[in-house]
Amino acid sequence: MQNVQSYIQDQKEVLVSELIELLKIPSISTDSAFSQDVLNMAEAVYNSLKAAGCDVVEVCDTLGYPIVYAEKNIDPKLPTVLVYGHYDVQPADPIELWDHPPFDPIIKTTDIHPDGAIFSRGASDDKGQFYMHIKALEYMIKAGTLPCNVKFMIEGEEEVGSGHLNDFVKNNKEKLKNDIILISDTGMISNKQPSVTTGLRGICMVEVEVTGPNRDLHSGLYGGAVSNPINILAKMIGSMHDYQNRITIPGFYNDVLPLSEKERQEVNQVNLDDEKIKEDLSIEKLSGEEGFNTLERTTIRPSLDVNGIWGGYTGEGSKTIIPSKAYAKISIRLAPNQKHEEVSLMLKNYLQEIAPKSVKLNVISHHGGEAYLMPTDDIGYLAAEKAYEEAFNVKPIPQRSGGSIPVVKLFEEELGSKSVLMGFGLDSDAIHSPNEHFGIFNYLKGIETIPSFFKHFTKMVMESNRSL
Amino acid sequence: MQNVQSYIQDQKEVLVSELIELLKIPSISTDSAFSQDVLNMAEAVYNSLKAAGCDVVEVCDTLGYPIVYAEKNIDPKLPTVLVYGHYDVQPADPIELWDHPPFDPIIKTTDIHPDGAIFSRGASDDKGQFYMHIKALEYMIKAGTLPCNVKFMIEGEEEVGSGHLNDFVKNNKEKLKNDIILISDTGMISNKQPSVTTGLRGICMVEVEVTGPNRDLHSGLYGGAVSNPINILAKMIGSMHDYQNRITIPGFYNDVLPLSEKERQEVNQVNLDDEKIKEDLSIEKLSGEEGFNTLERTTIRPSLDVNGIWGGYTGEGSKTIIPSKAYAKISIRLAPNQKHEEVSLMLKNYLQEIAPKSVKLNVISHHGGEAYLMPTDDIGYLAAEKAYEEAFNVKPIPQRSGGSIPVVKLFEEELGSKSVLMGFGLDSDAIHSPNEHFGIFNYLKGIETIPSFFKHFTKMVMESNRSL
Repeated sequence: MQNVQSYIQDQKEVLVSELIELLKIPSISTDSAFSQDVLNMAEAVYNSLKAAGCDVVEVCDTLGYPIVYAEKNIDPKLPTVLVYGHYDVQPADPIELWDHPPFDPIIKTTDIHPDGAIFSRGASDDKGQFYMHIKALEYMIKAGTLPCNVKFMIEGEEEVGSGHLNDFVKNNKEKLKNDIILISDTGMISNKQPSVTTGLRGICMVEVEVTGPNRDLHSGLYGGAVSNPINILAKMIGSMHDYQNRITIPGFYNDVLPLSEKERQEVNQVNLDDEKIKEDLSIEKLSGEEGFNTLERTTIRPSLDVNGIWGGYTGEGSKTIIPSKAYAKISIRLAPNQKHEEVSLMLKNYLQEIAPKSVKLNVISHHGGEAYLMPTDDIGYLAAEKAYEEAFNVKPIPQRSGGSIPVVKLFEEELGSKSVLMGFGLDSDAIHSPNEHFGIFNYLKGIETIPSFFKHFTKMVMESNRSL
Repeated sequence: MQNVQSYIQDQKEVLVSELIELLKIPSISTDSAFSQDVLNMAEAVYNSLKAAGCDVVEVCDTLGYPIVYAEKNIDPKLPTVLVYGHYDVQPADPIELWDHPPFDPIIKTTDIHPDGAIFSRGASDDKGQFYMHIKALEYMIKAGTLPCNVKFMIEGEEEVGSGHLNDFVKNNKEKLKNDIILISDTGMISNKQPSVTTGLRGICMVEVEVTGPNRDLHSGLYGGAVSNPINILAKMIGSMHDYQNRITIPGFYNDVLPLSEKERQEVNQVNLDDEKIKEDLSIEKLSGEEGFNTLERTTIRPSLDVNGIWGGYTGEGSKTIIPSKAYAKISIRLAPNQKHEEVSLMLKNYLQEIAPKSVKLNVISHHGGEAYLMPTDDIGYLAAEKAYEEAFNVKPIPQRSGGSIPVVKLFEEELGSKSVLMGFGLDSDAIHSPNEHFGIFNYLKGIETIPSFFKHFTKMVMESNRSL
């Protein structure tokens, strides 16, 4: 059997076209109109794990979308790697901003991706990235180089908060037992400078409904005497940041730990170019919490964003009304040590406190999760470091991410194992945005790097066992 | 020929069913999807003026929707009344809040309307009200009691700011020459206590677009460092009222005249029951500018309302993004003496001033118009007073309205004539809201009152001419 590089070179067309087939399935978990597509996607994942050579492959029912589970067992004395990923995707709206239909994948070259990138919703988040693991396993089985046992757990509700993964994990602790969890659902700095994600922010989300009068009113006849729910909601949102861009929810920063100078230095190893970000986003000025730089603001500090707002007349022309209702979806990214349920409650209480009596308020909490930290002296991190170095010829940098993968904390608590976040995407992949894409270089490099992780991780665990 | 009361009793079924036919035409001027319906409505108005017995009936083209013009001339030595109205209607959204389809009129009785009311978009605003004038004219012609000359000018763009009426009026001053303008596009206090509108607020409207990054961003990767256009827009809107609910736009109150104690007393002749309003609107508390009561807040004081807001993800579930754009439609009702163009500019400047550099702002002004006042010693007012007294057996109260009919000021400036605002609707008609309706009592009483106005007005003008 040829080595991994030449195997990938030979199989390149097949590897890309297989991924493209998966990307055609609009597995949008947040919108019930696509439920059949999500189920079809689970079946496609099942088939690909079967084809890769797993011994056990199961589509496990939950109260929501199923979890696809698989095993390839070699020897119970060898370590076990559990691969986690998700087969559901974000909605594609606003669809009009896509250059091509989001579920009709197309390959185009870009400045960053001279070898081409696949443009499609889910290309990077997370279909392209979990599929690398299936293809890497297939290679290792074919080549007879699989050094340890492998399990797969690919879920279909990550983009809606992994609501049913919790129960699945709690009820299947023995089945899911492992020595390390491997996840590719994050990014790296660049194709020249890989990085391993060592931190994630937590998240909490609420939906706010403000009700004023029981019907839309003529703004001439009532304007000035009846509270307008949009004006009220705007004022409430506006009061959530102070002039230093700090979040004003009482008690919000209580659990945010101050960073030591050493930690701050480690975080700042990553080189962020503010000018390049501004140019990329076509904005004149970056803006955030005083006393922190862009990297810190987006990784170790919490942030609050309104993800959507609506109310009143939004059609063509004008309609001079005081609307009956106004709505907003708000999400907060949490720093390590903040508890999402506590913050969600703080936010609810604060909203109730500042809402005037002239309106009614209804606040619903969506899912949430805590932040996560991976120490750089953990065997999982060290094995990943060696694997990237072997594939990229450059030592990767530990990197905190501002994103959230709430299940990582769940895995640590329930299964007692750490997760290694080996991401191969780039910030420019436009995940959650129109024109999401995943570089073909990144996809293939991922398939190349994973077997190397397996090899180093197994070796390190065996050595560490011997030395015990 | 029988008198007007018995004529109306006999013709009741026909009068109602003719109006119902007009209400079936969805003449929504703000939404271009309905443009053919608006044109069909113009034709229906043309036909009804012909049928009423006018000598001249014309559908006058403009750069927008046509103006239907008609004349019934008796004697050039007699005074001329110009009736103004509009055949376009507000959009019906939110359609799901209507108990019956908005353009499929239905008659139902209510506590306020034991004789029944016609439920349909435009029933009160303004189809039911302008059609009273056509039917009153028809009666006067048939009965041979028409005491003066009459002109009609029924436009199709009132709900979108009468954008082309300006030119039409300026270019047709001779044609439109009149001694008084008669408009039924307002309300009265109750079916037991009629009132004549003696004041209208002005209006100015803007649409705000806030642009942040050039695409929707992942709120995990960018949250904390990139200004969120929804958060910014909310803060800007939130800063437009101070803690006393006064509008904070610099210079905003400069042209608002203080009210004399006498004027304030006249305004407060109308009896408003705060408790009843709260109950009707299902709100716990009324709220507005400190130092003024509900009546004053909604009639003689300016007010600022966001009529619509939108941006980001507004679908089912969640999508954790920083959106690229956020929008709001804002309208301001103006007190007498405020200039709408100046206020519009003040608002624009203020928005530009408070917008941070991290976003781009685009503010578009929509149409606007000045406030209007009708003195209670004007012949037009006095004739209306007598007409209501004759029909209702109660002297009407002069009443300021918080609504805006910008063209009234235009008529005064261009044609030199005052407008009498003889409204027969009620506040509870839900104009601009779901389930708009117009009482059958009000509709028929309007047809009864109008000939009385013609009679008294002509008499008063002739007497005043003789005494000159």
